[in-house]
Amino acid sequence: MATYQATASAPVNIACIKYWGKRNTKLILPTNSSLSVTLDQDHLRSTTSSRADASFEKDRLWLNGKEEEIERDGRLWVCIDALRKWRQEMEQADSGLDKISAYHVHFASHNNFPTAAGLASSASGLAALVASLSHLYSLPQTPSQLSLVARQGSGSACRSLFGGYVAWRMGEKEDGSDSLAEEVASREHWPEMHALICVVSDAKKGTSSTSGMQRTVQTSPLLQHRIKEVVPGRMDDISKAIREKDFESFAKITMRDSNSFHAVCLDTEPPIFYLNDVSRSVIAVVEELNRAAGKPIAAYTFDAGPNAVIYTLEENMPKVLNLINRFFPQEASFANPFKMDWQSAQVPEGFNTKVVPEGGWEKGAVKSLIHTRVGDGPRKLDDGESLLNEDGMPKTLN
Amino acid sequence: MATYQATASAPVNIACIKYWGKRNTKLILPTNSSLSVTLDQDHLRSTTSSRADASFEKDRLWLNGKEEEIERDGRLWVCIDALRKWRQEMEQADSGLDKISAYHVHFASHNNFPTAAGLASSASGLAALVASLSHLYSLPQTPSQLSLVARQGSGSACRSLFGGYVAWRMGEKEDGSDSLAEEVASREHWPEMHALICVVSDAKKGTSSTSGMQRTVQTSPLLQHRIKEVVPGRMDDISKAIREKDFESFAKITMRDSNSFHAVCLDTEPPIFYLNDVSRSVIAVVEELNRAAGKPIAAYTFDAGPNAVIYTLEENMPKVLNLINRFFPQEASFANPFKMDWQSAQVPEGFNTKVVPEGGWEKGAVKSLIHTRVGDGPRKLDDGESLLNEDGMPKTLN
Repeated sequence: MATYQATASAPVNIACIKYWGKRNTKLILPTNSSLSVTLDQDHLRSTTSSRADASFEKDRLWLNGKEEEIERDGRLWVCIDALRKWRQEMEQADSGLDKISAYHVHFASHNNFPTAAGLASSASGLAALVASLSHLYSLPQTPSQLSLVARQGSGSACRSLFGGYVAWRMGEKEDGSDSLAEEVASREHWPEMHALICVVSDAKKGTSSTSGMQRTVQTSPLLQHRIKEVVPGRMDDISKAIREKDFESFAKITMRDSNSFHAVCLDTEPPIFYLNDVSRSVIAVVEELNRAAGKPIAAYTFDAGPNAVIYTLEENMPKVLNLINRFFPQEASFANPFKMDWQSAQVPEGFNTKVVPEGGWEKGAVKSLIHTRVGDGPRKLDDGESLLNEDGMPKTLN
Repeated sequence: MATYQATASAPVNIACIKYWGKRNTKLILPTNSSLSVTLDQDHLRSTTSSRADASFEKDRLWLNGKEEEIERDGRLWVCIDALRKWRQEMEQADSGLDKISAYHVHFASHNNFPTAAGLASSASGLAALVASLSHLYSLPQTPSQLSLVARQGSGSACRSLFGGYVAWRMGEKEDGSDSLAEEVASREHWPEMHALICVVSDAKKGTSSTSGMQRTVQTSPLLQHRIKEVVPGRMDDISKAIREKDFESFAKITMRDSNSFHAVCLDTEPPIFYLNDVSRSVIAVVEELNRAAGKPIAAYTFDAGPNAVIYTLEENMPKVLNLINRFFPQEASFANPFKMDWQSAQVPEGFNTKVVPEGGWEKGAVKSLIHTRVGDGPRKLDDGESLLNEDGMPKTLN
């Protein structure tokens, strides 16, 4: 008897033009387009295995070994249902195909980074699930078509279906059929883009992005201006910067848009704060590095939390590592996956160390650093890497 | 021989609708109207004495005992010159008047609050100077006319020429002749308005408001929307709230506008941060107090620094004092000028103490508290309170 299963991994993406606000919360249609850089799965990834079997009694999902309910009409269910319908259509058109759309499916999913890292795992997780199930069903749909499905699972997941530099076009249609992700440029076009994630300690639990963004939509007068007048131009400008590999423009727009996003959070009622004093200090260091360098050579960006992501070209990463390690000592020593000699990196002359508190921050204000770079899109993995055992139940991971 | 001298004190004002941005930096014409509450001079005031004498060789000014240069065509000079011209006109029209406009003037000015408190002393200081010199010259000009002069010394000084609730109308004319302050309501109309200033410790020197606001004008796309679409409606709404003594609306608009102002600071390039983690925590406490109370009973507002000003009606101040003293212990004990029994104040049931770090902040995160209330406009003081001695030199203050 045949075994129907597939395994795929998908990457994390970090937006340069931020998604904040839905015009349709059910279909997850955004109030503005957004653009992200896909990060390398060699460092950060979600992996999902899916298996269809006549013996399964219902669809089931295990996330990091723990079962999660697949609620009917919930976001996960909507994604699975959409892909299953595409499989059904194929089976109806070609009677030679196995009728596996009638079977229930088991999913096992795993993130190789701790949830505590504060990275949005829902985007990579949903993208891995969609990629894995589309392989199981041998679907002919393009990544952009699959992104329509992933979007309904978790908005920014749609961007994790591509590698490189990815735009999520907000679209205009009411049914959401044109609200999808597209590649702006491949990883190979500009492979020198590196990223340093600074995991910032925060005592306080922040506002969830799902509830926060809708509060902003409802109460912030400034958001309306951001949506209509600010973001469209930035989408064009940063796409051009990426095509021309113009890091200065890329950096300026990225920092501007991060600040604009946090500005509309502050303009929300009650105000939403994601940046804390450590985040502000990372901003101060990057701004001062750029000032001393005479041009932007690094760009910070912050999602719905205090963690900083610093984009910089490979050649300048040692400078960034030097400064961040100097002012923000971590508990554990930095892993340094690219074996960079950051200790002896030359920081631009005239860098004013007074931008950070004297003596730097106390150990652990930045908990850890993750150094990665631009990466590829979802990967199909061998059966040997399946997260499901022979019975279609989750393997125990060590 | 006659002595020509006068002494006046002027109050601090704290804006509810914020002034941020000049359309004309020379004349100090703002990009939007603003509105403030004048605070009680019994607690916070600047006092200025001025004396005209034929023997003086030039105009001189001492601020808190230290001489400051009066630069030709500088902001101080412009104010003195404008009032002197009005005096000249009077002397030309009435030959019976002493020709004191030909004399140089000595000024001595003093603030009764430490500069370290981070309160804008330039507003009260300039207003006291203008009030004092207008008395010395026996000028017939109204406070609104005098506000045109004070505005050119330090924008928000124009609002300190009135007590109570004061609007600074941005005006339309290029020469600034309609950019002046007006009373919206007197102190007597709504005397129950109290204010608690929380002086927040900050390691880092912030961006000066003069340079910060022009950077915002030059770089923030969101500021343009704030100016054109957001502030005009708020000016109308808060004026109505004040006229109707509607504290809920007053509080909502005040908090909104403070957040909107700090949002455009964040949208500036490079971003400007005035709020720190302690400021954010004060916001969290006030928001939670309002939530637990079921309606806004307190309103925070922040100027260009981390200090919070909390407006609340007299009857609710004990609750505010209880919470702030509980979570933000100060080095010195609270002076309690109104002898309020805040220790036994009932905080609304259901107040969630988790909005602040466990155990509250460390001693000194809030350095000190100043409890005051809505106050009157500039006061003419007796000669006995002059800050100048018989020779027209500054007295030594203890």
